[in-house]
Amino acid sequence: MTWVDVPEGSPFGVRNLPYGVVSVDAGPPRPAVRVGDQVLPLAGLTDEPLFAGPTLNPFLAAGPDVWAAVRERVTSLLTDESDRARVEPLLIPIERCAPQLPMRIGDYVDFYSSEHHATNVGRIFRPNGDPLLPNWKHLPVGYHGRAGTVVVSGTDIVRPSGQLRAGEFGPSRRLDIEAEVGFVVGVPSEQGSPVPVGDFASHVFGAVLVNDWSARDIQSWEYVPLGPFLGKSFATSVSPWIVPLAALEAARVPGPPQDPEVLPYLRESDPWGLDLALEVRWNSQLVSSPPFAGMYWSPAQQLAHLTVNGASIRTGDLYASGTVSGPDKRQRGSFLELTWGGAEPVRVGDGQRTFLEDGDEVAISATAPGEGGSRIGFGEVTGRVVPAKA
Amino acid sequence: MTWVDVPEGSPFGVRNLPYGVVSVDAGPPRPAVRVGDQVLPLAGLTDEPLFAGPTLNPFLAAGPDVWAAVRERVTSLLTDESDRARVEPLLIPIERCAPQLPMRIGDYVDFYSSEHHATNVGRIFRPNGDPLLPNWKHLPVGYHGRAGTVVVSGTDIVRPSGQLRAGEFGPSRRLDIEAEVGFVVGVPSEQGSPVPVGDFASHVFGAVLVNDWSARDIQSWEYVPLGPFLGKSFATSVSPWIVPLAALEAARVPGPPQDPEVLPYLRESDPWGLDLALEVRWNSQLVSSPPFAGMYWSPAQQLAHLTVNGASIRTGDLYASGTVSGPDKRQRGSFLELTWGGAEPVRVGDGQRTFLEDGDEVAISATAPGEGGSRIGFGEVTGRVVPAKA
Repeated sequence: MTWVDVPEGSPFGVRNLPYGVVSVDAGPPRPAVRVGDQVLPLAGLTDEPLFAGPTLNPFLAAGPDVWAAVRERVTSLLTDESDRARVEPLLIPIERCAPQLPMRIGDYVDFYSSEHHATNVGRIFRPNGDPLLPNWKHLPVGYHGRAGTVVVSGTDIVRPSGQLRAGEFGPSRRLDIEAEVGFVVGVPSEQGSPVPVGDFASHVFGAVLVNDWSARDIQSWEYVPLGPFLGKSFATSVSPWIVPLAALEAARVPGPPQDPEVLPYLRESDPWGLDLALEVRWNSQLVSSPPFAGMYWSPAQQLAHLTVNGASIRTGDLYASGTVSGPDKRQRGSFLELTWGGAEPVRVGDGQRTFLEDGDEVAISATAPGEGGSRIGFGEVTGRVVPAKA
Repeated sequence: MTWVDVPEGSPFGVRNLPYGVVSVDAGPPRPAVRVGDQVLPLAGLTDEPLFAGPTLNPFLAAGPDVWAAVRERVTSLLTDESDRARVEPLLIPIERCAPQLPMRIGDYVDFYSSEHHATNVGRIFRPNGDPLLPNWKHLPVGYHGRAGTVVVSGTDIVRPSGQLRAGEFGPSRRLDIEAEVGFVVGVPSEQGSPVPVGDFASHVFGAVLVNDWSARDIQSWEYVPLGPFLGKSFATSVSPWIVPLAALEAARVPGPPQDPEVLPYLRESDPWGLDLALEVRWNSQLVSSPPFAGMYWSPAQQLAHLTVNGASIRTGDLYASGTVSGPDKRQRGSFLELTWGGAEPVRVGDGQRTFLEDGDEVAISATAPGEGGSRIGFGEVTGRVVPAKA
């Protein structure tokens, strides 16, 4: 269907066409679309200055009509044989492209919307209490993270140091991951005006994968009463390619039933659950396959909640789902859960692991049903742990 | 000493010279210095393009040498009679100036560093427990707030709606303030590299007043276990004029003794406690006079803690002290404390108040010892509550 030579099984077929920013041959950042193992730079394809800058923000701000028009145009260029002679020379092999952060992020919010994850964490940290707290089924619990330390996939992660308990300082000994899906805001909203749950796709452009690196020892000492801070703020990694919601229509599924019934501002008439199949690899070994379809709160509900108090959203804002965990052990999206707080090591390669060791690399990937029976994907978000600084 | 006609008792004498951004006669935003009841626009005073844009960010990023040189130059222009003929026509009366947000904010962090405030809140919310939690004297507890909803003084505050408890939705009935001091980052740091406690003044440019509006009912239902979210994210107000640290040298004082002794990364050789006298006015009536000098954690300790895990800071980042409360009742920096959770109403005008009513206006101001025996000030951060949207 496309004249581009897309490798068999590539997550980046012509039904996907995700957007990113790349540095070609170490040049300046350029917005581009990925197809197979090549990228098509976007500046010059259109008269508009949408793609002239170093980020996708102007395009993200332009809204659904422009998103649809550009997607249609790029699809046409890559599928119409008559455009081939002109467009083919513009394609650049992915090997020459260094991925950059695709957008300038305003605020970063992290939710906590997997019931299995919240239940596991509750059982590990509060073995004698109710694993789910009283508010959990009434609202999508979330908090603000640090936007300035969101990095693109492939960036090394320096092991954080900090207070591990009273009077004890050093490199974290319980460095963990959280496999999540993040949503990228395109169209901003006005302060004081909530975004209705049904307006999700008018504001949100697309999705990325997120690894919300977490230092569990730092976090557990600091987090009462104001929540996670240094246990999370040292780094958050995102995948380089923003998959547009337009490519995810075939992945939409209803979420699990919500009981008690949610308040009206959280009721979706056309649910935005997404059937994304995540995979977590620890030093190349598949250790977990978290299913996003089971998330209790949808990204549309998260956005409605995030803004119901009148908080505004800005172009480039990122909000993440929270750790994606399924009901089975091999579906857990954090090593805290996978090793049950370190009590049940997992086999990785020739050895065993509880938390991350220096030199370890983690890759999170995801695929989804695409249009026309295709299978599309997000690619990967990867990161390698490097030793704490002296 | 200055040829400018500075009104008697003005907080903006020539020993202060704070920086802001104003829209003159509804024109575009222009960086400026305030002196008395006039402002001096900065573009054109120097060859550098530091002041050509709509925010102070380029100047903030330029670092201590440039900060000192510009301060010296502006001081000279406003005190040397020989410059008067040239500079006086450039001054613009404050009445023609609409204040703007002075910087583009990267991340916004809010601390919790008054022992009196933390103790009061602990007693109100956990009457049977230890008022201070175990980590409180070991580290400056903090969390990330929403940078995108920080607004400049004078912006109306729409009463937020939200979940007030299980199944109950509506406008907040416990809308509160928090009187705080905020610190503005100039020079950024590199991800992975902590900022030593002694490098505070190499990175932070100056200070503003902050009103961290808080919906106590929304906050108390949502905040376990990940901290405050919608109870805070609807709006945070800042004063328009950034007082440079250079103007606050005479205000430096040691903070209270810290016991237990803090870890090495938090030890200050030359402490950055600040003797700022805050005042809180509720519908023009003075209801509280919180003393900043008693804050347990200094802004230098807060910065060192914020970055000790390798989290980077960016130009324009804002971090706030947390509510400033003193030991006496009339020194409490929130109405939650002042009315003891609403149990002890305070007289305001002809009536009584527990939390904010629609139409109420709050003004927070502060003064400090300036150089040469002068008294300088921050001016005010004000905001009026307008009704929740239907």
